[in-house]
Amino acid sequence: MTQQEPLYLDDLVVGAEYPSAEHRLDAGQTVAFAREFDPQPFHLDAQAAKGTFFHGLAASGWHTAAITMRLLVDSVPLGNGIIGAGIELQWPRPTRPDDTLHVVSKIVEITPSRSKPDRGIVTVESLTLNQQGETCQRLVAKLVVMRRPG
Amino acid sequence: MTQQEPLYLDDLVVGAEYPSAEHRLDAGQTVAFAREFDPQPFHLDAQAAKGTFFHGLAASGWHTAAITMRLLVDSVPLGNGIIGAGIELQWPRPTRPDDTLHVVSKIVEITPSRSKPDRGIVTVESLTLNQQGETCQRLVAKLVVMRRPG
Repeated sequence: MTQQEPLYLDDLVVGAEYPSAEHRLDAGQTVAFAREFDPQPFHLDAQAAKGTFFHGLAASGWHTAAITMRLLVDSVPLGNGIIGAGIELQWPRPTRPDDTLHVVSKIVEITPSRSKPDRGIVTVESLTLNQQGETCQRLVAKLVVMRRPG
Repeated sequence: MTQQEPLYLDDLVVGAEYPSAEHRLDAGQTVAFAREFDPQPFHLDAQAAKGTFFHGLAASGWHTAAITMRLLVDSVPLGNGIIGAGIELQWPRPTRPDDTLHVVSKIVEITPSRSKPDRGIVTVESLTLNQQGETCQRLVAKLVVMRRPG
């Protein structure tokens, strides 16, 4: 990743892609997150997880989402920050405790606000991929993005 | 909260509501979460947050989502766990570091699977409310719910 200048509404182009750095998971991280926020057997205990929907230990989807956010902060350098108005999330396959994740974000739509001329809503699709390039999460976010301060 | 029996697809009824316990936040929790997953000034530093979109320190929306999940695990006791196939999230107002949150979940739709007769998709709307009863997050989740084991 090269260091990037902060981006404002005027800088964004539909179709532009922003790849992130990688984040390497391990069971220490996934179990700690699950203990605090999502204490269900398939996120906590490898033995108990075997007989479940996930057929083995899986990270909480909310952990995948949180790591995705961490990777977005450095890879989509919006001048006013990453501010989500609304999002859609799917988890097509589980994130496993030994996965290495990265995120590829693409600008899908840019809609200048009619009522507030200093900003717009930008739709960004962010795919969170594992080390095999398989999609563990699809996030579509509507972000509030400001124009460059005058 | 009374202790509840595990719920299966057959037990669920459209319109049924499941209130959660409360979770009391503080700046220690919100800043720690933001440092790990969402390190942006409006989540980290009260002084820096003043001049931002949020007009003061706000919790990461992903922290609100993670706490919501924690409250759901105990308040919506599904027999096979809470397994989200896809979700929509909005944050109509910021969660503040001194908020006390609770969640009210309502069953919106129940769709038995045509291809897999042992399960269905249940749509649940979960509102995360602060101590004033204001909605900080609206989550609509499509959950995979199994029939009672035979």
